[in-house]
Amino acid sequence: MPTGVKIAATPEQLAGVKYDASGLVPAIAQDVRTKDVLMVAWMNAETLQMTLDEGRMVYWSRSRQEIWRKGDTSGDHQDVREGYYDCDADVLLFKVHQHGKGACHTGERTCFYRRFGS
Amino acid sequence: MPTGVKIAATPEQLAGVKYDASGLVPAIAQDVRTKDVLMVAWMNAETLQMTLDEGRMVYWSRSRQEIWRKGDTSGDHQDVREGYYDCDADVLLFKVHQHGKGACHTGERTCFYRRFGS
Repeated sequence: MPTGVKIAATPEQLAGVKYDASGLVPAIAQDVRTKDVLMVAWMNAETLQMTLDEGRMVYWSRSRQEIWRKGDTSGDHQDVREGYYDCDADVLLFKVHQHGKGACHTGERTCFYRRFGS
Repeated sequence: MPTGVKIAATPEQLAGVKYDASGLVPAIAQDVRTKDVLMVAWMNAETLQMTLDEGRMVYWSRSRQEIWRKGDTSGDHQDVREGYYDCDADVLLFKVHQHGKGACHTGERTCFYRRFGS
């Protein structure tokens, strides 16, 4: 069973992350093995730090306005393997090992299970 | 040279897309071949429709507040192959063929070229 990788981000990297007016930054979770995009959710500075420290994806739930340690209720948690930030430092990308049945609350493996077109 | 795929989204799919308070939705561009996440930018309803109609990624530039037909100045345009929307219909994912040297204005192939950690 793979475990999460704790990441020691530098103070410069952490200070460089750009949050929106609500103090949030979008974070993409990508399956480290299949490279499928699993989901996109939001982090604030606190849950980004928790994610890096714990090696496990911790989001900020906008609907519940609370820390969302992915999988605590569902079991479908996500171990961190690598973390990236984009050229503007306003989007994060984590390669993860997805536990359980998948990332999506619908039971699908990825949240992007619906395709435009008929 | 592959060309973009024009996508006939259904009226229900288009009506279901959830835009934020600024009328924008984040759109992920993923390399259809390598599955690398290339970039994340924003679309409004108009540029989403243009993207689907033209088979080519058209974003809304938040900094310039104008339609951003990716690659018109750089040549690094992105042909659409498939388009997806997530379970909440508030994030879009397009699999694209990336032309030119890459997606990033820095000259990197992907905008996510920097990794947390030292």
